[in-house]
Amino acid sequence: MAQVAFDSLLEQPIFQIYFFYVAVLSLKMLIMSVLTAFQRIINKAFCSPEDAVHLKVKVKSHEDVERVRRAHLNDLENIPVFFALCFAYLTTNPSVFLASSLIRVFTACRFIHTIVYAVVVIPQPARALSWGIAFSITVYMGVSTILHYL
Amino acid sequence: MAQVAFDSLLEQPIFQIYFFYVAVLSLKMLIMSVLTAFQRIINKAFCSPEDAVHLKVKVKSHEDVERVRRAHLNDLENIPVFFALCFAYLTTNPSVFLASSLIRVFTACRFIHTIVYAVVVIPQPARALSWGIAFSITVYMGVSTILHYL
Amino acid sequence: MAQVAFDSLLEQPIFQIYFFYVAVLSLKMLIMSVLTAFQRIINKAFCSPEDAVHLKVKVKSHEDVERVRRAHLNDLENIPVFFALCFAYLTTNPSVFLASSLIRVFTACRFIHTIVYAVVVIPQPARALSWGIAFSITVYMGVSTILHYL
Repeated sequence: MAQVAFDSLLEQPIFQIYFFYVAVLSLKMLIMSVLTAFQRIINKAFCSPEDAVHLKVKVKSHEDVERVRRAHLNDLENIPVFFALCFAYLTTNPSVFLASSLIRVFTACRFIHTIVYAVVVIPQPARALSWGIAFSITVYMGVSTILHYL
Repeated sequence: MAQVAFDSLLEQPIFQIYFFYVAVLSLKMLIMSVLTAFQRIINKAFCSPEDAVHLKVKVKSHEDVERVRRAHLNDLENIPVFFALCFAYLTTNPSVFLASSLIRVFTACRFIHTIVYAVVVIPQPARALSWGIAFSITVYMGVSTILHYL
Repeated sequence: MAQVAFDSLLEQPIFQIYFFYVAVLSLKMLIMSVLTAFQRIINKAFCSPEDAVHLKVKVKSHEDVERVRRAHLNDLENIPVFFALCFAYLTTNPSVFLASSLIRVFTACRFIHTIVYAVVVIPQPARALSWGIAFSITVYMGVSTILHYL
């Protein structure tokens, strides 16, 4: 394994860019919970009996709620993995331009994915493309990290 | 972007508090898997045919199992994001008192959330409040981090 | 709380082993999305109307799709928690041999878990054992970290 000075790496501006986008993507994910609650209320679709009783409605599901939940689940499948993997990738001393571009494109794609999936439904391949580009960036980071530390 | 000396930050006690609560919250999440398995066994409700066959019961779902699973999913939506975001927030050099209080209140709220959701069901707004305070802390950390690195 | 020099810790080879396995486990999780998409296509089982319309099939679920999704959800419940907790555990200055062995066994168990759950279905207790060993490693790391920083 290559010897890397982690201390000097942590002083580099790329980690500040990383922390900034961790915050942006975290807030984006948190908004999904608010969107779900909003859809539950306007569609009166709750999954816990105590919530339904509180608002005098029956427990049921609704397509608009399920759609936001699927977008949220897709975030859970992709964003926490990105947080850990991108941090590992940044320790491999990549070019600042490349790494910051990958982080920014990933962030933009995840925002587009949510919008076309759960806010304004746009026909495929809008969602597949935005998901696929973000996915490919994560795979690239994973392969780069493995090759660096092999 | 502000220049921050990450090395000296990592020596601060606040990171030791952070690592301690990462461990506490991780164990709390892991217990949810045990609780789910426990509810599956006492209610004989399994989702994989090979498990059901093993115990000579049919594949089915049960409200008590689903309740624990919803609490677990809520953890998955909130706690891994908190781990990444809180680490980013701590690099923005917040006051130790404020940061450690936020971490402790977040942890307490997540424990209360699970208890009132899946162990002893207490009517709303017990669950909404515990979820909302933890959620607000995460949002505050996100906004602080974005403003710091903007 | 014990005073630990984090800077020197970050220079240790164990962090390079950690980053390597973060990349391996991240790619393993990402493959689950590809496996799900693959199962959806060969079984013509989609959950979003716009996807079903695109391929002229009805929205439905299928056991083989649900099986991959359960394996993926199990990854989401265990792997991101491991990423955060293992990082916290490594700051407690464990023996390199012990820590690297735990990381490698955890990784092997998670691969075995996915294979016996979603690729070649093997009767229990194959899945329970692979899940349980990985789970026990995470619990050990959590308890060690708590005792260290108490």
